[in-house]
Amino acid sequence: MWWDERIVASQPGSDNLTPHEQPNGVSTAGADRGAPKPGKGGSKDAKAAKKAERASQRGKAAPATQPDPDDPLRDNYGDPPLVQSRAQTGEKYWQISELSPALSGQKVLLRGRVHNVRGKGKSSFVVLRQQSSTVQVVLFVDDKTVSKGMVKYVSGIPKESIVDVSGEVHVPQEPVQGCTCSQVELKALSVKCISRAAPLPFDLSDAARKEEDLQREDAQFVTVTQDTRLENRWIDLRTPVNQAIFWIQSAVCQLFREALLAESFQEIHTPKLIAGASEGGAAVFKLDYMGREGCLAQSPQFYKQMAICSDMSRVFEIGPVFRAEKSFTHRHLCEFTGLDLEMAINEHYNEVLDVLDRLFVYMFNGLKSRCAADLATIQEQFPVEPLQYLPKTLRLPFEEGMKLLQEAGFEPDPLGDLTTELERNLGKIVKQKYNTDFYILYRYPLAVRPFYTMPDPEDSRYSNSFDVFIRGEEIISGAQRVHDAAMLTERAQVHEIPLDSIQSYINAFKFGAPPHGGFGVGLERVVMLFCGLDNIRKTSLFPRDPKRLTP
Amino acid sequence: MWWDERIVASQPGSDNLTPHEQPNGVSTAGADRGAPKPGKGGSKDAKAAKKAERASQRGKAAPATQPDPDDPLRDNYGDPPLVQSRAQTGEKYWQISELSPALSGQKVLLRGRVHNVRGKGKSSFVVLRQQSSTVQVVLFVDDKTVSKGMVKYVSGIPKESIVDVSGEVHVPQEPVQGCTCSQVELKALSVKCISRAAPLPFDLSDAARKEEDLQREDAQFVTVTQDTRLENRWIDLRTPVNQAIFWIQSAVCQLFREALLAESFQEIHTPKLIAGASEGGAAVFKLDYMGREGCLAQSPQFYKQMAICSDMSRVFEIGPVFRAEKSFTHRHLCEFTGLDLEMAINEHYNEVLDVLDRLFVYMFNGLKSRCAADLATIQEQFPVEPLQYLPKTLRLPFEEGMKLLQEAGFEPDPLGDLTTELERNLGKIVKQKYNTDFYILYRYPLAVRPFYTMPDPEDSRYSNSFDVFIRGEEIISGAQRVHDAAMLTERAQVHEIPLDSIQSYINAFKFGAPPHGGFGVGLERVVMLFCGLDNIRKTSLFPRDPKRLTP
Repeated sequence: MWWDERIVASQPGSDNLTPHEQPNGVSTAGADRGAPKPGKGGSKDAKAAKKAERASQRGKAAPATQPDPDDPLRDNYGDPPLVQSRAQTGEKYWQISELSPALSGQKVLLRGRVHNVRGKGKSSFVVLRQQSSTVQVVLFVDDKTVSKGMVKYVSGIPKESIVDVSGEVHVPQEPVQGCTCSQVELKALSVKCISRAAPLPFDLSDAARKEEDLQREDAQFVTVTQDTRLENRWIDLRTPVNQAIFWIQSAVCQLFREALLAESFQEIHTPKLIAGASEGGAAVFKLDYMGREGCLAQSPQFYKQMAICSDMSRVFEIGPVFRAEKSFTHRHLCEFTGLDLEMAINEHYNEVLDVLDRLFVYMFNGLKSRCAADLATIQEQFPVEPLQYLPKTLRLPFEEGMKLLQEAGFEPDPLGDLTTELERNLGKIVKQKYNTDFYILYRYPLAVRPFYTMPDPEDSRYSNSFDVFIRGEEIISGAQRVHDAAMLTERAQVHEIPLDSIQSYINAFKFGAPPHGGFGVGLERVVMLFCGLDNIRKTSLFPRDPKRLTP
Repeated sequence: MWWDERIVASQPGSDNLTPHEQPNGVSTAGADRGAPKPGKGGSKDAKAAKKAERASQRGKAAPATQPDPDDPLRDNYGDPPLVQSRAQTGEKYWQISELSPALSGQKVLLRGRVHNVRGKGKSSFVVLRQQSSTVQVVLFVDDKTVSKGMVKYVSGIPKESIVDVSGEVHVPQEPVQGCTCSQVELKALSVKCISRAAPLPFDLSDAARKEEDLQREDAQFVTVTQDTRLENRWIDLRTPVNQAIFWIQSAVCQLFREALLAESFQEIHTPKLIAGASEGGAAVFKLDYMGREGCLAQSPQFYKQMAICSDMSRVFEIGPVFRAEKSFTHRHLCEFTGLDLEMAINEHYNEVLDVLDRLFVYMFNGLKSRCAADLATIQEQFPVEPLQYLPKTLRLPFEEGMKLLQEAGFEPDPLGDLTTELERNLGKIVKQKYNTDFYILYRYPLAVRPFYTMPDPEDSRYSNSFDVFIRGEEIISGAQRVHDAAMLTERAQVHEIPLDSIQSYINAFKFGAPPHGGFGVGLERVVMLFCGLDNIRKTSLFPRDPKRLTP
């Protein structure tokens, strides 16, 4: 894989001649990995960049961007004018993945990033990258195509710059080491840099380093802290693991919708700007809405239920949810993507669990088959046991879960909520007993569930509700809802929720309301836990936490 | 169709015996239709409901909810306990659409709403509704199954209540008039009301009245104002047209994604909570983000571009966008659903237009084939000419558009923006000349486009940008973007945008940025204009405008 090569290249004594040998804005190996640190925003980043710039200038002239006008081969290199829709030649731009020995001798044009470049006297070797694919481009001064000036120009192109390379496909004697495309390389005919990169705050190879390498006793690598990554997310996202994570995230959404559309669900879009706090509590962002107080929805809960009251009998939504919680954990964000559904039921909320079961088994199977390469890429940097799940998901009553914990020596409150610690331990017990990382815990105590949760008809200490866990962490919360306006009012009063703040929600149930239930899932958590990653910031494109609102 | 019948039923002198004959909260025919009025929120609604309640109580006892304990047939009717997941019999609940004469004599169980009920002495006729499907349920006192008490109970069930009806499928001598299921009716065996509706603020039949009926000279119908509809959206959404609109909305999203996923696009989710105003200007909702100022994103513009800088070469997003504009028009909302895409280009933003062209033709074709019944339903209430579009979308240069307007006697500013009025007129001219309601206008003057728009390389008065129109109204805005940090800084300065508010955005372009372009579409506008509807509030589930934040 392409980042293997970089372990060598960025070690002390490597022959890397690019101007950014020692990346800045990084810490030494092992320090602060994964743990978020309060950042100072742009200023820290700016300092790092300046430091890098100074380092690059030390003893070196800025690399030439234009050819020597006296070079007869000057047309083969140099920075062209900005790509500005001047003309449309329609010439094919090739993908690295399309290259093969069958094309030997053919001229191809590729656009990609300079992943690495080494100039050595009369030759230059460029590793050209497109997303996670790499190919080697070679230049030898021959005075027919490649001049000394061209080699110098190419060798001076900063890493991560974008270049248009025209080259002849060539099958090397030995497969190229350290490139994903190892069977062929390109003999450069022309190289033009269309977008130059400034000095990098960190080296991409350092950001892509394997966990096991970093943990080796003799490790001498620089480690890129999470804060530095997030400050420069547009660079961090270029690592193979990050490319893979966001393809998986895209696939989760598509699989979620495929499964639900096939079961007659309808996609809806509910308002995020609302008048009252959607679930009560302090964790709500408030704002001025044209002179009156508005809030950001903490979930589409109320509105997806109103859709049910509106005869849309099965609905789902994928959209942002907002939590103004000062939770600074590995699994909380202030803004995340909610996958929500709500459905009318005939008799029992087991009907919701049936949909949930089919949905998630479909999603997990789909991820395994469609994203096999992406999952392998993640495994390589962050090895973890693949998710174990059953063809029919285990459904464990809450009371039985408590018994299992008690038998293992824990002392859970039988009518209280589970702590994160107890959830984790129950996950381990279930894994051992039932051989699954994914299970449903149902019939939670009523007191620990939101006011709109339907009480258990047999025992009002319990409720018609459930949570779902992956690897011992909660990812789904759901229930049958109260669809009777009088009972809903009563339950809100028990929870001391001011009725005027939820009056229109309660009104929705007054004109004939179908029995219904549903659940919500956090997209970033699903991706994190399915892949076995250690921090939710890894699965959010531009994460928002109590300290981070940029970039 | 089911609402035809209601025209008769709610006319003066009809034999409608339900308690809510004269709907309240409605205005007389023709008044205020379509035009939004500043509402007083819940209080107005509450008053209307109380008035209706009083009217219903006048001279009538509350209808019985439980059977006469002495009735030997008492098991066949009465309100059962709340559906609370007591047990799961697994008994099949039928859909009206499944019923046919082939089932004659079979016993079936259905859950649906009481769309209408007429009691006449010893008989009762119920129109049972599931979404937009209706079937007639008949009861005749026979003292074997149906008692007098049962007929009285059924006749007293308020409209819009939800009932479980067990009945025998029966083929009537004449087809049932005014029900979607006309070939069969049900002979009731048992009727149980599982959720009673309170007095309705308006009659669903009035809300579903055809435009042409309302506009008849002798029209004597009550008209439901838009404000009353939106105040009680959970009832309004039950009309066949509204059911159809939101199935079309769901289909638009699915078609959008299908087309793009097939062209190697990736779905992303960008933050809605951001530090600076995403596009400058005053139309931004501000909020307190953990002690510092935050904003709601006015579009995913900056973040989808940052995704391009992160090597995600083709991305799309479906998500909410927020505009704190005090625009009170038929086509503006303060929150709407944006369909956004951004893609790397090789040479020219025509590559973006090629994607746009294929995408929209695919979507329009898909809507016509997948949503034919829904479109017909909308046509019936709101007749309009179906959208005309070409297999290859017309691309008209802005300058040529100005010429067409000038030739028609208008005086557009050749380097200014088009007014809504001029856009509408240009739409008419284009329709006449090219026979299309859907076209692209490209190469807009630079001065009227956002700062991140790439200037035209030949003539800097123009830009590499475009708008797209349906029926003379703008639905898409797009462009090639500036991918050079220095040029971007310069353009921001020209637009007097404070650089510190967009610094992290500009930074994203410093580390090698691919040339790229993209566009954004408003989901509600697409649905409104494709269907030829007159107000965007009709295509938003729970619309948000400067006066409306509830329900």
